[in-house]
Amino acid sequence: MKNFKRENFFPLKKKYMIEDLNKLIEPETNIFKLKKNFFVNDISSLSTLRDCSIIFLESELNNINISSKDIHVVTDKQENIKYYDSISIVKNINKAYNCILNALFYHEDQSGFPDEYEYVNGSYISKFCKINNNVEIGKNCLISRGVEIDENTIIKNNVVIKNSLLGKNVIICDNSSIGTTGFGFDFNLRGSLHLNPQIGVVIIEDNVHIGASCAVDRGKIDSTLICKNSMIDNMVHIAHNVTVGENCCIAAQTGISGSVKIGKNVTIGGQAGFAGHIKIGNNTVIAARSGVTKDIKENSVVAGFPAVDIKEWKKNLIRQRKNGY
Amino acid sequence: MKNFKRENFFPLKKKYMIEDLNKLIEPETNIFKLKKNFFVNDISSLSTLRDCSIIFLESELNNINISSKDIHVVTDKQENIKYYDSISIVKNINKAYNCILNALFYHEDQSGFPDEYEYVNGSYISKFCKINNNVEIGKNCLISRGVEIDENTIIKNNVVIKNSLLGKNVIICDNSSIGTTGFGFDFNLRGSLHLNPQIGVVIIEDNVHIGASCAVDRGKIDSTLICKNSMIDNMVHIAHNVTVGENCCIAAQTGISGSVKIGKNVTIGGQAGFAGHIKIGNNTVIAARSGVTKDIKENSVVAGFPAVDIKEWKKNLIRQRKNGY
Amino acid sequence: MKNFKRENFFPLKKKYMIEDLNKLIEPETNIFKLKKNFFVNDISSLSTLRDCSIIFLESELNNINISSKDIHVVTDKQENIKYYDSISIVKNINKAYNCILNALFYHEDQSGFPDEYEYVNGSYISKFCKINNNVEIGKNCLISRGVEIDENTIIKNNVVIKNSLLGKNVIICDNSSIGTTGFGFDFNLRGSLHLNPQIGVVIIEDNVHIGASCAVDRGKIDSTLICKNSMIDNMVHIAHNVTVGENCCIAAQTGISGSVKIGKNVTIGGQAGFAGHIKIGNNTVIAARSGVTKDIKENSVVAGFPAVDIKEWKKNLIRQRKNGY
Repeated sequence: MKNFKRENFFPLKKKYMIEDLNKLIEPETNIFKLKKNFFVNDISSLSTLRDCSIIFLESELNNINISSKDIHVVTDKQENIKYYDSISIVKNINKAYNCILNALFYHEDQSGFPDEYEYVNGSYISKFCKINNNVEIGKNCLISRGVEIDENTIIKNNVVIKNSLLGKNVIICDNSSIGTTGFGFDFNLRGSLHLNPQIGVVIIEDNVHIGASCAVDRGKIDSTLICKNSMIDNMVHIAHNVTVGENCCIAAQTGISGSVKIGKNVTIGGQAGFAGHIKIGNNTVIAARSGVTKDIKENSVVAGFPAVDIKEWKKNLIRQRKNGY
Repeated sequence: MKNFKRENFFPLKKKYMIEDLNKLIEPETNIFKLKKNFFVNDISSLSTLRDCSIIFLESELNNINISSKDIHVVTDKQENIKYYDSISIVKNINKAYNCILNALFYHEDQSGFPDEYEYVNGSYISKFCKINNNVEIGKNCLISRGVEIDENTIIKNNVVIKNSLLGKNVIICDNSSIGTTGFGFDFNLRGSLHLNPQIGVVIIEDNVHIGASCAVDRGKIDSTLICKNSMIDNMVHIAHNVTVGENCCIAAQTGISGSVKIGKNVTIGGQAGFAGHIKIGNNTVIAARSGVTKDIKENSVVAGFPAVDIKEWKKNLIRQRKNGY
Repeated sequence: MKNFKRENFFPLKKKYMIEDLNKLIEPETNIFKLKKNFFVNDISSLSTLRDCSIIFLESELNNINISSKDIHVVTDKQENIKYYDSISIVKNINKAYNCILNALFYHEDQSGFPDEYEYVNGSYISKFCKINNNVEIGKNCLISRGVEIDENTIIKNNVVIKNSLLGKNVIICDNSSIGTTGFGFDFNLRGSLHLNPQIGVVIIEDNVHIGASCAVDRGKIDSTLICKNSMIDNMVHIAHNVTVGENCCIAAQTGISGSVKIGKNVTIGGQAGFAGHIKIGNNTVIAARSGVTKDIKENSVVAGFPAVDIKEWKKNLIRQRKNGY
């Protein structure tokens, strides 16, 4: 279920060839090397290389095997010129990313996103989504273009689902928002006009339960993924590019920052928080109110902020109390 | 106001006699002792025994006075065989609970929940609820079967109210969800298919204010209760079976875990959290960002995580600073 | 953009003269001194004095220059009698405030608030608001009287906007609530009937981004203000009278208490919290999960709870670990 057709969610505004796209970012471009001009219809990431695409590299990387596909590199690292023969070296990679993606794709953070809705049984359902007949959808929902929902899934009321693929037997509770825009931008370029376009999706596998008033941001280029049998309580925030493994359980008001990878069978207490880009091993337990700032090995039990082994955390509390606390 | 008719909210799917229900859980049943076969139409809890019902016992308990009523015991504790003459001893009480309740009751976490709505003034109102004429309801709301709302209550916009009884002069602010599904399941059996059916209600007494984007889960079998004159700020999570006493005040983003009992005149700062099943005495003050892990005596003032007397908490901070902090 | 016409949002119920309003609070009034009887049509605050208004003073203040305007003082501080010649000295200023404001203004926390909606493209839009033609509004939204929205702003789905003025290029994401009621009341007088009427607005300047499931309370008398180019992630709570300066960035699940003033270029991590009425200097960085309890100087970087200089916070952690942690 991990593949998705970007065009179903983010239609191309216009066909651009590499040369034309490079003209758009010309003020930002220092060097432009073209092997072959081609029509661009997608964006690649390090984890998924796509044919006829552009890949944005923020670091020096000599080992991406892009030779078999038409992929043009855009990077702010001069060194990459050595490794790739279709490349634009730019000053500010965020500006280049925004400029190219805004030119290529319709997305919901710019005016004119094309969609058409039917009002079915009290909810707005896009004409461009695929919903199994055995799905139940409550009132005051909005399901937008490209969304697919498999059988026996229950969408309760006042739920917004965009840019998402949902499996079987999924439950999404009231007032939740799935497929929302990730919080991505250059720290030196703030404001809604400088948001990095987010053109990925949310994939929710079979038997997942998501509570009330949750928000799950879609991936930036690829997916935010919630694997089967995972259970998420109320008011949980899941940022872009996160993976929640199978059989996880996440209690209320927890927040998971961008690109965190959570393993299988992980149990997370309420009001916990996770720094971005960390990995949480299988079978770990994260106590309530933990602030997890770095990778956690599998089978660990952690607590506190910064989260440490729960035995250490308890020892420290006892020590503090002995000292007059 | 603490009584409610379960059938108003959770209609019986079918009439079952004890013997038939026991057949459903036969793979789970080790011992089955029947005093008298009867039609089951309700579920009992330790706090409320109901006639013609089943009670699920997770521990050895010899002091439940069920002799005057038709009550069948389902338990995973072999010892209970000594005390009750209508009893099923099962291997996994969660499985038995789910199996029996899913057979008996319609509830919103399974397909086919029966309800019918009218679109009144921009909101969907069930034909099976009782709303006083002097209640004001905003737009894009959903009020489902069984709900009762008393006079002069104001429901703002995009609010979902299910399985709830609301008193007079209550205010529920925008985008809140009342009566949502509690986060109840066996930790070893995860996924939406293993959710414990939640067939209780939310009772909100007179003059309660609930802010925007709150979620209040209904009781599992009995009620989640918010007593009169209590005030709840935005984005507060209240889990199943919680009681909030009279005249409480709960600031934004606080989370209250399942079965917590909060007394009267309790003041709770923002972003506080409470472990499950604890008791908070009358007139206590819980400072903002406290993580309360155990019972708190009345008239206490606590802070920190784990929350301790606020004077101790402050002393500890001073001590830390002296040590070079 | 900082001026707003209160009558656009909160219509006067009835024209009252000072003498008539004082009669309403007579049981609360100890002393009443009248210079000139006039029709009251607004409320003043210390930061904005308005002609033909009442100002409520909770402390002794001798330096308010109200001589050029018709302003009547209501106060519970006897000493103020020396400074003002149009004054009511009351026992309980909260009761007087509630009584006078409820008599003067329609507001959404009392029955009978007058508004009229049109259903436009799936959302309810008040006939009494001004929305630029180039604004895009999703489905299941509610936009109430007085709201103004400037060009190229995008309101996503299931959004509630009340009592607000929005600039250009603003983005408000799904399920957010803007202009909600602040959590204001006398701690000794709880319950929905004793809420302090909140008759201010929210002002959101150009290019602001607000994520999903946020809540921004309107000002009590003046404004809650989010300045241009600021970016707010999902599930952020912003209380009444807060100012967020230009170019701020606030990560998910942060809560900002009433009357906090945040400077320019401030970066705030996720799940941070702020005590009420504090000032955060320009260019500060507040680490994730900080609990900020007092003013922070500009250019600071703070962490922890209570938040301290991040170097001190890290030193303390290292010291704890050395001690066996």
